[in-house]
Amino acid sequence: MDSWVDGQPADALSLKDRGLAYGDGLFETIAVCGGQPLLLDRHLSRLAGGCSRLRLATDHELIRREVLAYATALGDGVLKLILTRGDGLRGYAPDPSAQARRILQGNPPAAYPAVHGERGIRLFPCATRLATQPLLAGLKHLNRLEQVIARSEWQDAGHAEGLMLDQAGHVIEGVFSNLFLVRDGTLITADLKRCGVEGVMRAELLFQAESLGIPVQITDIPLEQLQSADEVFVCNSVYGVWPVHAYGALSWSVGPLTRKLQTIARALLDA
Amino acid sequence: MDSWVDGQPADALSLKDRGLAYGDGLFETIAVCGGQPLLLDRHLSRLAGGCSRLRLATDHELIRREVLAYATALGDGVLKLILTRGDGLRGYAPDPSAQARRILQGNPPAAYPAVHGERGIRLFPCATRLATQPLLAGLKHLNRLEQVIARSEWQDAGHAEGLMLDQAGHVIEGVFSNLFLVRDGTLITADLKRCGVEGVMRAELLFQAESLGIPVQITDIPLEQLQSADEVFVCNSVYGVWPVHAYGALSWSVGPLTRKLQTIARALLDA
Repeated sequence: MDSWVDGQPADALSLKDRGLAYGDGLFETIAVCGGQPLLLDRHLSRLAGGCSRLRLATDHELIRREVLAYATALGDGVLKLILTRGDGLRGYAPDPSAQARRILQGNPPAAYPAVHGERGIRLFPCATRLATQPLLAGLKHLNRLEQVIARSEWQDAGHAEGLMLDQAGHVIEGVFSNLFLVRDGTLITADLKRCGVEGVMRAELLFQAESLGIPVQITDIPLEQLQSADEVFVCNSVYGVWPVHAYGALSWSVGPLTRKLQTIARALLDA
Repeated sequence: MDSWVDGQPADALSLKDRGLAYGDGLFETIAVCGGQPLLLDRHLSRLAGGCSRLRLATDHELIRREVLAYATALGDGVLKLILTRGDGLRGYAPDPSAQARRILQGNPPAAYPAVHGERGIRLFPCATRLATQPLLAGLKHLNRLEQVIARSEWQDAGHAEGLMLDQAGHVIEGVFSNLFLVRDGTLITADLKRCGVEGVMRAELLFQAESLGIPVQITDIPLEQLQSADEVFVCNSVYGVWPVHAYGALSWSVGPLTRKLQTIARALLDA
């Protein structure tokens, strides 16, 4: 369906937009099912946090209304919401009075092979490492060249995702997913204070695990720690949970905690 | 004047452009004087290097012809050339067959106060530090949130530029300039292998200095080293050279090597 820019159907963007010039903005990728945007509160809450950190002024209630209206029209698919700082004057200085430009785009439902969720995936070992930048860490901002380079490292369909490390060699995330380990019944995921994206499904699974009394650890994960993991999985808010069955020479079976969280994720995404 | 997209007048861009979605592209900011794009070979050479590193396919001779034609029409001003990877499919994976989209924009000549060049400027001490990312270091790519955040740190006109350090506290560059020190007759500038932009004027001044037999050092510059500098200046390909007369409690007079290189830069930009 048509995209919307600031609430109006549009197929083009001003060439002066700071999203193009500098990647000066944020985005959300929201699964839509039966006209409902899923995990909407978490998406909008992350977006609001990002706006606050980037000092991007916008009307969050208006965004919610537009997303709901767009999702109703889309029906089933994936809604991409982009906020940019609008048109720029010359130079990097942001106009403190600027209101964010709102871009809504609709795509058909994601068509990943079901086997990814059933039997799990193999992770490609990306050589591209994430830079340490605490000012941007956690945000789903528009500066995504690291992901573009990492994703271009492999073409074969045998790897459904790639694993990205930070500069120090810690396990951080997938190119478009967050990553979890299970060890001795504890759910472990990377601390994202220095790099990485704080995924909406990651936040939801952490919340669900705590509700279920599952011990959770958010910490630095040296790569060697993958060897001692009982289970490994990746997640995002579009596909839910994919078990990881292999990374290089390492391999894992699909474990019970992975299946439990996958079931929870699936229920949220089939809502 | 009108912008051009792929050689045609245009005022809007496809909403699917990967420049918007991911900052997946490069740019050049080229001074134009009397219809001539200045330092064009250096700009196009940096762009070609960036295309090669980002695997961005384009016709470099076509770009040269378009820039020349656009500059002729612009007369005097600043030409901004943006290359993006064009429209995206869903996801980060670049289409290996994609040809870069060419965007040309024209602005009036930059209107900086003449006093910046005459008496020098004060540098703002930016708290925003540049991330270490060797894969992107040196490139003038479209992921510029660090510069946006750094430039938003100050609003007063008393600081014409800001100094950015890397994560380890080395002096790297200005927000929109490169930086040089002079000590004991040697011209010193930061090594940009881990972060920073390899400016066209920086490259030209290094070339000119070597031609003049001035010793040049490209190295890591601890912040403390500013204290022992005899001269400090910043440069870019639009304004040329600005002496730096103050940074925090430190101050410098405008020195002879700064003036010599400023004169050279001015001659190149008045061409």
